[in-house]
Amino acid sequence: MKKIYLDTAATTPLSEKAFGAMLPFFKDAFYNASAAYSDAGKVARALREFRSRVAGILNAQASEIIFTSGASESNNTAIKGVFAKIFRSKKHFVTTAIEHESVLKTAEYLGTFGIETTYLPVDSSGRISLSDLKKSIRNDTALVSIMLVNNEIGTIEPVEEAAEICRERGVLLHTDATQGIGHLAIDVKKLGVDFLSLSAHKFHGPKGSGLLYVKSGSSSGSLVHGGPQESGRRAGTENLPGIAGLTSALEDCARAYAEKGEELRKMQNKFVRSLYQIEGLEFNGSLEERIPGNLNFRIGGKSPVNGESLRIMLENRGILVSKGSACNTGADSPSHVLLAMGKSAEEARNSIRISFDLTTRNEDISEAASIIAESAEFLRHERIFA
Amino acid sequence: MKKIYLDTAATTPLSEKAFGAMLPFFKDAFYNASAAYSDAGKVARALREFRSRVAGILNAQASEIIFTSGASESNNTAIKGVFAKIFRSKKHFVTTAIEHESVLKTAEYLGTFGIETTYLPVDSSGRISLSDLKKSIRNDTALVSIMLVNNEIGTIEPVEEAAEICRERGVLLHTDATQGIGHLAIDVKKLGVDFLSLSAHKFHGPKGSGLLYVKSGSSSGSLVHGGPQESGRRAGTENLPGIAGLTSALEDCARAYAEKGEELRKMQNKFVRSLYQIEGLEFNGSLEERIPGNLNFRIGGKSPVNGESLRIMLENRGILVSKGSACNTGADSPSHVLLAMGKSAEEARNSIRISFDLTTRNEDISEAASIIAESAEFLRHERIFA
Repeated sequence: MKKIYLDTAATTPLSEKAFGAMLPFFKDAFYNASAAYSDAGKVARALREFRSRVAGILNAQASEIIFTSGASESNNTAIKGVFAKIFRSKKHFVTTAIEHESVLKTAEYLGTFGIETTYLPVDSSGRISLSDLKKSIRNDTALVSIMLVNNEIGTIEPVEEAAEICRERGVLLHTDATQGIGHLAIDVKKLGVDFLSLSAHKFHGPKGSGLLYVKSGSSSGSLVHGGPQESGRRAGTENLPGIAGLTSALEDCARAYAEKGEELRKMQNKFVRSLYQIEGLEFNGSLEERIPGNLNFRIGGKSPVNGESLRIMLENRGILVSKGSACNTGADSPSHVLLAMGKSAEEARNSIRISFDLTTRNEDISEAASIIAESAEFLRHERIFA
Repeated sequence: MKKIYLDTAATTPLSEKAFGAMLPFFKDAFYNASAAYSDAGKVARALREFRSRVAGILNAQASEIIFTSGASESNNTAIKGVFAKIFRSKKHFVTTAIEHESVLKTAEYLGTFGIETTYLPVDSSGRISLSDLKKSIRNDTALVSIMLVNNEIGTIEPVEEAAEICRERGVLLHTDATQGIGHLAIDVKKLGVDFLSLSAHKFHGPKGSGLLYVKSGSSSGSLVHGGPQESGRRAGTENLPGIAGLTSALEDCARAYAEKGEELRKMQNKFVRSLYQIEGLEFNGSLEERIPGNLNFRIGGKSPVNGESLRIMLENRGILVSKGSACNTGADSPSHVLLAMGKSAEEARNSIRISFDLTTRNEDISEAASIIAESAEFLRHERIFA
């Protein structure tokens, strides 16, 4: 059966080009980048080149890029790193109610050491308010963390404006930009953040590879202590294949977005128009402040369609979608993001996430929209005759 | 020029078989193991199978294996994880003066939070004494960390005996076994440890992939907080290619050691005998309590040979060796391991590490020994005529 993969927000297949970029470092150039002989020196030079290329794409300096094992590690590093340095004088953290688990659980962990967290609420469109942010900042606030794009609903948070507020108040700002890359142009200077996290496997790079941007001069500690790799900020033998794959995939997705971002937006608009034909369909989250490539909806109205039944039925017809973050799929607890937006537990449970990117074909979007409509219709009748 | 790679303790090339094991998970089986559809379920099943196979090799239970990004992360996780849980009642850590940086720097970091560390000294053969260990344990000792095999000199520490002492005193024991695998049979039950770290790239698996064994029931926290992956003990989308490669390489190296460990020992003995012909050559560390595949020596006597000159000369003749841990190569500071053994800074700086494994060919060992002898002779004359 033909499959249409509409869960790129969960993960993506490795691109051929990224795979090709990784290959030399598995065998021929396998040397430890820290070793003294010239074969290892070539690996160290390649590493420097990757760091510069990555920095170039994000408008950062090479020295501001730390390679990690992924965004969960990057988020932990940024947040714990700040509080490890500063916890004696500043004990307050501000984040949002709709962050990824790797931010929320880190906040919970810091709580056991006396760090207090304020969770900014979001409105029904899924966005924080800047006046809430202003009010939340205290004299003992060390760090604010606001995701650039929500992983479940695709909405864009006002990070640039938040950065201005944080700068005025002398507070550091971290953003988890994992879901933004390939769906937005990302420029760390324009965003004005101090820390930014990314994960390669969300943009056709390899799993187990990510990065943390740390603005030059931002005082922050390490998560993985040890050897002097990554200028002493992340220990462990450098994962050259992973870094090579990340670099290649990041360049490709940034270029593809620059050249064809408008196509992605058109695909999204077409998808939105088709889905709107379904009686009772409601989108979750702002349709304006949203990346192209992420739609979250439920089919409500007079006879609401059960979310899990719809997901399964779509899967049976070859359409792979999710009910939210892959990280939370195990438990059937309603999404904390949708609850924070004021949806009921039932509305949250009935919601479906569709995510795609520039590797998704236009005709697959059309086909998926038809199948979703047919499936919704079928499930509604099933319910009537059950 | 033909190259003879004698730095397997720094890193190893990926084996063809491990590479083959990784391949399916880059593209066809790229799905997020936590997603709900059955294609992702297959990936989750593969992950369970890898975990069982790894556990089988180490004589652990599958639930005791946490996949990480490498041994530095594993060491940080074990040590910080214990103190994060227990720091209010127990504030004392015991380790050795010759640990890897990822243990020593973690101890230093914990020091900023009031955790006190006792560093066990080693004798001139590079081994700790069990009576020192006994004396070091206090009522507020939470954890002891003793490496199984030293990365610079290849000596084996008495971990099994240490485990008995720790058990009697109700103290947890962690061992960094990174340098042991493929050079020793590793059985977590026989060792009797609570935590054990490994890194795949040291045994022909991929970089960016490692594991931490956590004995069932050992209370310990996470390092990377977030999603429920690894039973909530290590967040982040699972690096399936990395885990597949680790599993394949671990099986192969354990099997190869079981079948041909004696050959590796013979190669080592032959190497030792050849090197002993060089006037003034002295081995660093016990020649008895040592893995096969790691030799550390200096050429002293009446006219000592400069270590870096020897390393460079060997490199010019195609023999790649190191002057100690790759992690410390940047600075030319003398090895903390050799200093702890009572060597002078000059003796430490003149020392060379040779490391190899069952992929190293017998004839390469013979050739390397001859070239080392010739190079030493040449450098001595150079010095005389300089």
